[in-house]
Amino acid sequence: MKYFASLLANDMAATMDLSVELSKNVLTTNNVWMMLATALVFIMHLGFAGVETGFGQAKNTVNILFKNTITPIIGIVSYACVGFYLMYPGFEVPGWLSFDLAGWNMFWFSPASADVSVNYADGGYTYWTDFLFQAMFAATAATIVSGAIAERVKLSAYLVFTIFFVGLVYPLIGSWKWGGGALDEMGFYDFAGSTLVHSVGGWGALAGVILVGPRIGKYVNGKTVDKPGASVPLAVIGVFLLWLGWFGFNGGSVLSADPALVSLVLVTTSLGACAGGLGGFMAAYFSFKRLDLGMLLNGILAGLVGITAGADVITPGAAILIGFVAGILVVLSAILLDKLKLDDVVGAVSVHLTCGIWGTLAVGIFSTNPEHSFLTQLIGVLICGATAFSAAFAIFYLLKKTVGIRVSAEHEKSGLDSHEHGIRGYTIVFDE
Amino acid sequence: MKYFASLLANDMAATMDLSVELSKNVLTTNNVWMMLATALVFIMHLGFAGVETGFGQAKNTVNILFKNTITPIIGIVSYACVGFYLMYPGFEVPGWLSFDLAGWNMFWFSPASADVSVNYADGGYTYWTDFLFQAMFAATAATIVSGAIAERVKLSAYLVFTIFFVGLVYPLIGSWKWGGGALDEMGFYDFAGSTLVHSVGGWGALAGVILVGPRIGKYVNGKTVDKPGASVPLAVIGVFLLWLGWFGFNGGSVLSADPALVSLVLVTTSLGACAGGLGGFMAAYFSFKRLDLGMLLNGILAGLVGITAGADVITPGAAILIGFVAGILVVLSAILLDKLKLDDVVGAVSVHLTCGIWGTLAVGIFSTNPEHSFLTQLIGVLICGATAFSAAFAIFYLLKKTVGIRVSAEHEKSGLDSHEHGIRGYTIVFDE
Amino acid sequence: MKYFASLLANDMAATMDLSVELSKNVLTTNNVWMMLATALVFIMHLGFAGVETGFGQAKNTVNILFKNTITPIIGIVSYACVGFYLMYPGFEVPGWLSFDLAGWNMFWFSPASADVSVNYADGGYTYWTDFLFQAMFAATAATIVSGAIAERVKLSAYLVFTIFFVGLVYPLIGSWKWGGGALDEMGFYDFAGSTLVHSVGGWGALAGVILVGPRIGKYVNGKTVDKPGASVPLAVIGVFLLWLGWFGFNGGSVLSADPALVSLVLVTTSLGACAGGLGGFMAAYFSFKRLDLGMLLNGILAGLVGITAGADVITPGAAILIGFVAGILVVLSAILLDKLKLDDVVGAVSVHLTCGIWGTLAVGIFSTNPEHSFLTQLIGVLICGATAFSAAFAIFYLLKKTVGIRVSAEHEKSGLDSHEHGIRGYTIVFDE
Repeated sequence: MKYFASLLANDMAATMDLSVELSKNVLTTNNVWMMLATALVFIMHLGFAGVETGFGQAKNTVNILFKNTITPIIGIVSYACVGFYLMYPGFEVPGWLSFDLAGWNMFWFSPASADVSVNYADGGYTYWTDFLFQAMFAATAATIVSGAIAERVKLSAYLVFTIFFVGLVYPLIGSWKWGGGALDEMGFYDFAGSTLVHSVGGWGALAGVILVGPRIGKYVNGKTVDKPGASVPLAVIGVFLLWLGWFGFNGGSVLSADPALVSLVLVTTSLGACAGGLGGFMAAYFSFKRLDLGMLLNGILAGLVGITAGADVITPGAAILIGFVAGILVVLSAILLDKLKLDDVVGAVSVHLTCGIWGTLAVGIFSTNPEHSFLTQLIGVLICGATAFSAAFAIFYLLKKTVGIRVSAEHEKSGLDSHEHGIRGYTIVFDE
Repeated sequence: MKYFASLLANDMAATMDLSVELSKNVLTTNNVWMMLATALVFIMHLGFAGVETGFGQAKNTVNILFKNTITPIIGIVSYACVGFYLMYPGFEVPGWLSFDLAGWNMFWFSPASADVSVNYADGGYTYWTDFLFQAMFAATAATIVSGAIAERVKLSAYLVFTIFFVGLVYPLIGSWKWGGGALDEMGFYDFAGSTLVHSVGGWGALAGVILVGPRIGKYVNGKTVDKPGASVPLAVIGVFLLWLGWFGFNGGSVLSADPALVSLVLVTTSLGACAGGLGGFMAAYFSFKRLDLGMLLNGILAGLVGITAGADVITPGAAILIGFVAGILVVLSAILLDKLKLDDVVGAVSVHLTCGIWGTLAVGIFSTNPEHSFLTQLIGVLICGATAFSAAFAIFYLLKKTVGIRVSAEHEKSGLDSHEHGIRGYTIVFDE
Repeated sequence: MKYFASLLANDMAATMDLSVELSKNVLTTNNVWMMLATALVFIMHLGFAGVETGFGQAKNTVNILFKNTITPIIGIVSYACVGFYLMYPGFEVPGWLSFDLAGWNMFWFSPASADVSVNYADGGYTYWTDFLFQAMFAATAATIVSGAIAERVKLSAYLVFTIFFVGLVYPLIGSWKWGGGALDEMGFYDFAGSTLVHSVGGWGALAGVILVGPRIGKYVNGKTVDKPGASVPLAVIGVFLLWLGWFGFNGGSVLSADPALVSLVLVTTSLGACAGGLGGFMAAYFSFKRLDLGMLLNGILAGLVGITAGADVITPGAAILIGFVAGILVVLSAILLDKLKLDDVVGAVSVHLTCGIWGTLAVGIFSTNPEHSFLTQLIGVLICGATAFSAAFAIFYLLKKTVGIRVSAEHEKSGLDSHEHGIRGYTIVFDE
């Protein structure tokens, strides 16, 4: 009998050990997925750089690249300093503003950084992974603005704007939903950020476009003048990298490696991208009577932005519908913006704002979760939009009235590269 | 005694729970690998775009990019509509044609998409992951064709071809082996698609090249005229991305994260690529007396295609041999095609068809599995080849006799971009 | 009683089975991470190609791309032939030179390659994964040299150098620490290779720069003449891909998927990159009074190199400090090298040697592990530096005295592409 008791006790202990080991490995698996999702979101910054440099003029290539290279740097650093703790503060009701001082302390002063990171995590992955994933996200919101106002914005003004927009505005609005704040309480749903990332960035872009004004020679005698982009291959590289990055952007937003959910999300995301491309291509064909590669590309991005709010709560069929409508909307929106003389170099407002709104509302129409409602989605869109637009407008306005936000006309005409950077984007000559 | 019984019962229940949790985590781990393999195969489409735009002429850049951007879109959508269920139908003997209607229903009309996805899967990852991985594969077969017939094919004809080729021909042939059909019964082996993907695409390319005819000015007075590619860096970007993507293409074809097999596959794949590059570089050096970067690059791709049929059943030494021979073959094949006045812009027929056949036959020579035989491999190559070539020939022939498959001579000379797309691929000017 | 005994026996057997299954799952998870880290390190080779082609002149584009494409090939093959077994030999004291003959045999002649691979592994992932990860690392050391001496080095000489440097010098030095040799015994710490990879490569680059001499027209009448790079976008693509690859370079150097350590490493690595970029940008602004994109980019790389020696033993705050100092050092180092008329096309010596030394010493200052000491770090830096520099100098010197290491002046002036490769890097014309 004693022998059995001791065998049983050993076996129970072994089972317990196994249970601990298994929990560790579940954490490890989730963490591997989240780290790779982080890497994929990181590469979106190169995607944005490709799109903007490809569609921008060759004389401004270096300036655009400078903006796009320093944006994730500012994004990550400001998020480490302030944003992260503002966005995930552990709210008390009513949940509009708070700050996670304990998290801030741990980030900067924890003696045994690695271990704490695991214990602090409650979502199945570590604190460090959480930070880095969210920081990569944060930086994308600023990048969206950069594309719209390229080719005439003052670099210094853009940098100051970015610090405030990524460091304060984006995490504040994000905290209302993803930080468990007031919008979350209300039942608003935004899976991976059609509103919280894309339309917030899009509102910032719109405010910038309005206050900076159109490029010289863009609207002449009521006509819109095309300014050919330097390199279409770069734009294509950019869009493919963005699509690739969206595997992490949406797939990582499941916040675990849950196989059913993540793989559904990847399928809806890819179908949304495909349908968006087809919608953009067709709408452009009917509007402009040509095979418009730019609109095929922006249609893909539109589909991706559109699918982002509800990628985990819709069927593949709905994903195709949402993406296709987004692809059409991006073309109509671009036409409308030009009518309004709002000059957006890469179509960022059309892609991120128009389709971000559409995608968020579409959750209210297509979600398989009966708790999601169109009205709540609309209220969320309005609250976030009003906040993001007025904040961005205020920052740009203050900068305009102080240091100025636009380069000189002479500077703009001869290109930003030669003045501020002293080199050209391309030097394709074959003799000295 | 009762106390022991109850302890024992609890412990048994705990063991059972652990067993369920562990199975879940095994599924999760496999699924993470397969999703990332899917992302890697996706980026191969950017790789193809790079190779083709890099080797194609600058006046056709936008056209090539348009083709390469819309190809994965058509591929994924047509695979979602038809191909997937045609390729994995759950065959009855003899296994030449069937359709998974239940799968089709589940894909489009399942109410609780996420959960079903896990239960439906039997291979250790979810149904959605399965679909997306296979869809990304399917689209590559069409892309292979696009590179060969670039610079003079009508875009509309190519698009219609792609819909039928990816939607019907590729999955039908694929079902014979990977769907468990007749070739599988016969003992034919093709690990990741030297035949089922690459030579099928290669046969399509050959049919296209024959029917579309060479570019104007390519073969003049018995001489082959080089048409310089627009951007060698783009071609290099393309080849590196394809090599990277092959980590997923071959590594994911293990269909699990099995550490021994997947890591062996990555090693043989990389050694095949290396040896292919060396073979191509050396063969070109002896043939052309120059350090031919194009042949170094195509040699790498040749090695990758060659290794693909047997990457999991060969030793590292055999991988180097197979790759090296593939690298030599790709040069000889390119020389032969030019002799036959078959104008293949990027060498797609030489890379994918010639080396796809070689790689499939090489399984019969080098496989460590004694059940693999050269004769069976040869029969499989012939059956798939006859089917793919005649199907592709028939589609292109019908299109030629109806809507036409070739642009006008004037159009071809001035470049496809200005006519169909209205923009140029590069606008590298520094003043307005 | 017998019934209980049998139940208990079954339960114990089930627990044992679970334990085996769980170990497998842990191995699988670690292996997935390590394979993906390998893929990320692989893509760094495209990153190097981008940086060097972007900063190099257009007339040498094909030559640079040829070097960068064949370098990983030579690296992987020579590492498979010799390097791997030299680097991880299982040392006897004192640990300066040994060779793993058993491993070499297994690699080339094992009959059942896949299974052995798992059993041979003791680090939680397979032998094949181990090989491929380390081989990708090895090849980067040679690539560093290639950038510094581009635009005038003879390709043949570079290739011979690479075979010896990657096949012998790099693995020999690496064995002293990572192979458990004499430096490891001594307590020297170099987490992911600030010294073993980057400064070894940097010393090779310095030896090459000295012996090859500056490009014609680089230093004229005591003035440094800028030679504009062909494509700034390519350089940016390169730097982003290198940053991405560093997720695998540093993250994979944990040699498991340990969530706490790997995610800490990714955070310190990213913060180091950010701070390096800021340091480089600011130092350049004060030195040159312009927004120097080149120094922003090299600052990022400097931060990454600097953080690499201690990424797993420092806090985020220290990471920012180390990176920021590295960013400043890279600018000062570049200025100093130009003063010394040491012509380094891409700044490889400043990035990899200067900041590799700094990063290794920084471990002695900032490490949270009290066993790490500044003096030991310094001794390690000196031993590795003396060996790498004299070995590289000797190889280049022998080559210089025999086959020659520099192209003719005429050849250099007209560009390496037209002579050796017969094509141009860019052909951006729109009519035939």
